[in-house]
Amino acid sequence: MVDRHPMWKDLGMDLETHDQLCAVLPTAFGDVYLSQENRPEGMAFWDMVVADVHGIRPAELIEEQKKGRKVFGTFCTYVPDEVVVACDGIVTGLCGGSQFWVPEGEKHLPADVCPLIKASLGARLGKTCPFFRIVDQIVGETTCDGKKKMYEIMAKDVPMHIMELPHMKRDVDVARFAQEIALFAKNVEEVTGNELTAEKLAEAIDIINNRRKALARVYETRKDPDTIPISGTDALLMMQIAFFDDPVRCAEMANKLADELEQRLVDKVSVFPAGTKRILLTGTPLAIPNWKLHHIIETSGAAIVCEENCTGTKFFTNLVDDSATTLEGQFQALAERYMKINCACFTPNEARIQEVIQLAKDYHVDGVINQNLKFCTTFKVEAPALEDALEEAGIPVLNIETDYTDNDAEQLRTRIGAFVEMLGE
Amino acid sequence: MVDRHPMWKDLGMDLETHDQLCAVLPTAFGDVYLSQENRPEGMAFWDMVVADVHGIRPAELIEEQKKGRKVFGTFCTYVPDEVVVACDGIVTGLCGGSQFWVPEGEKHLPADVCPLIKASLGARLGKTCPFFRIVDQIVGETTCDGKKKMYEIMAKDVPMHIMELPHMKRDVDVARFAQEIALFAKNVEEVTGNELTAEKLAEAIDIINNRRKALARVYETRKDPDTIPISGTDALLMMQIAFFDDPVRCAEMANKLADELEQRLVDKVSVFPAGTKRILLTGTPLAIPNWKLHHIIETSGAAIVCEENCTGTKFFTNLVDDSATTLEGQFQALAERYMKINCACFTPNEARIQEVIQLAKDYHVDGVINQNLKFCTTFKVEAPALEDALEEAGIPVLNIETDYTDNDAEQLRTRIGAFVEMLGE
Repeated sequence: MVDRHPMWKDLGMDLETHDQLCAVLPTAFGDVYLSQENRPEGMAFWDMVVADVHGIRPAELIEEQKKGRKVFGTFCTYVPDEVVVACDGIVTGLCGGSQFWVPEGEKHLPADVCPLIKASLGARLGKTCPFFRIVDQIVGETTCDGKKKMYEIMAKDVPMHIMELPHMKRDVDVARFAQEIALFAKNVEEVTGNELTAEKLAEAIDIINNRRKALARVYETRKDPDTIPISGTDALLMMQIAFFDDPVRCAEMANKLADELEQRLVDKVSVFPAGTKRILLTGTPLAIPNWKLHHIIETSGAAIVCEENCTGTKFFTNLVDDSATTLEGQFQALAERYMKINCACFTPNEARIQEVIQLAKDYHVDGVINQNLKFCTTFKVEAPALEDALEEAGIPVLNIETDYTDNDAEQLRTRIGAFVEMLGE
Repeated sequence: MVDRHPMWKDLGMDLETHDQLCAVLPTAFGDVYLSQENRPEGMAFWDMVVADVHGIRPAELIEEQKKGRKVFGTFCTYVPDEVVVACDGIVTGLCGGSQFWVPEGEKHLPADVCPLIKASLGARLGKTCPFFRIVDQIVGETTCDGKKKMYEIMAKDVPMHIMELPHMKRDVDVARFAQEIALFAKNVEEVTGNELTAEKLAEAIDIINNRRKALARVYETRKDPDTIPISGTDALLMMQIAFFDDPVRCAEMANKLADELEQRLVDKVSVFPAGTKRILLTGTPLAIPNWKLHHIIETSGAAIVCEENCTGTKFFTNLVDDSATTLEGQFQALAERYMKINCACFTPNEARIQEVIQLAKDYHVDGVINQNLKFCTTFKVEAPALEDALEEAGIPVLNIETDYTDNDAEQLRTRIGAFVEMLGE
């Protein structure tokens, strides 16, 4: 493997601290991923990426920057990648998914803020993530209190553009978000120096729609009621890296994987024994390398067949209508698609409940696990309503609240084990 | 005193539980209020109101409802009372300020949500607050995660209208809030059955501006560097009841109190000994009957001379421009005034920092106490920035996090005592 230290040094990273992360990640990955049996061959691509996760893609981004392209960092599935791609910019996800970054974040944030937010700020300010160093600009949004206010601290250290996300879904809100996309487009034009045209945006809409279709194909194979062609743990890795990868390559790799998984359905090749309980996981996002809950669930006699969250169906469900031919029409089409994402930051968010129930049926699940990252108020407050609706629909549900530490691993294993056992009765 | 039990019973209240609250409130009020010396005579009005706080005003509201008027309950200084008043409706505040309501709220909300939110929901669902029973409709807003999501639970029990509050303060956001006010006006017209006209809105703008001017007059007297004519504890009570009272009477009583306080300045009648340290309190709101921090501070050798919060300057600072003659122009003027409130739900909220520093100078304060209700993420995350700015301006600051319980009273007394002592050095 290439020694990335010179690159990381050029990026102004804290090499000594970062080496500690590099030292533990391969073991964590090996324990969770390489211990799995009969994995799809297509996963080799993502295994390779994650083996050098702070090397391969950062090196590519730096090469592209040398050619004059700009890199935009994002935290949220509401930020429309299409606009950046259309201006020949590059989008990379930034959400922090490791406890490693939390203590640095807690130097600047209260402890009672969700770990994703603390890790994200910690990764930037601690200089221990190359993506956070590479970005020319970061794009934030007014989703939740914690992220919104964290961005103010981050903005002192790096150029940021904030998008106002409406918290209701009336027509007037969709129109406002279309206006926000137009404002974001102006910002992207300025940062990239490239003019946005309807033609270029149409191409970008195609690119991102194709990524959505490819990821959806992989998920589609997980609906088979008899064969589980891929573990949730593997599917999650594909999703996590989709936020960082080039969208065209992401689609290509996901389509290749989907080909293999579709063949597995024909051949009835399952990665779990017959009778394994099928779980839908819903709730807060699982940023890389947060594999904790997937690993516990899938080594407790169950398989995750669907993730209804930002690192799951929310990322690819619903295509952008590509029929508009003016920027104004395209902004509206983008707003309509993005505003269909059922995040708990919306009020009300009844559509999420209906979506979870529908997905539970489509994916033939035996039970739902609703995961909440500690201190995520929005998802936590709507949990009882989701629970009630699922129970009414006859679908067992388990609410889990956790963070990035391993302190509760054994407790979770006990609770999840009991839940899975109960599903068999 | 009139026996209010028949009225409370008609309102469907839980009389037995509510009696427990009625039993403790007079003692709490006596301990905090009546123990003060040399209080302004004008406070007699508010003493009377609070002595029968669940009786006098509720009885008035019920009388008005019998005449066909509608009562709107609100939680937030961003909701424009003017619109309701113009349609001959009545506004009443609803924020819960007592630990008494928290356990009921926690039946439906996570424990790690701010006490104001839990108390508010608990007061409604526990049927232990007449205002919550009387209201024909409640008006919510998308300020913070906790309130926004709590409203979804409350909406299952009572008709609600939600206003989308933008979280930035660009011109486009002010325009959006003007649009929200127009949508709210439609709702108020429907609920009241009265048409809104520019003439009626102009009158209402006058009424509410007059209330602002009257409350500001009281605050103005607190700026005197030598004489402190009213305790912060008393001023807080006036502000807390301003949310519940008829706005014309509120202005009348506040003006009467201001007359008396202005005379006190002439006569150099101070309620604190010379040399008492002057404190500006900033941060989260203090809903009635939350007198905890004021009582501790003002019995620890200091006086509060200004509250920079929603139950303080935010409620009355900035008048609505009354020059517009069309509804559209008036909605814009209202939006401009309300969007000047510097709540921590905005990003960035730099103007609050500048305002606190300015107020600290105007009110000649010796130190600032920044109070945060537990789990209020927005105010908590911006606390360090405020602290840094105050320190740079040479103004000592103490950050306090607390809730509605008395568990931390002694600890707070120790910390505040040490802070006040330090101010004297």
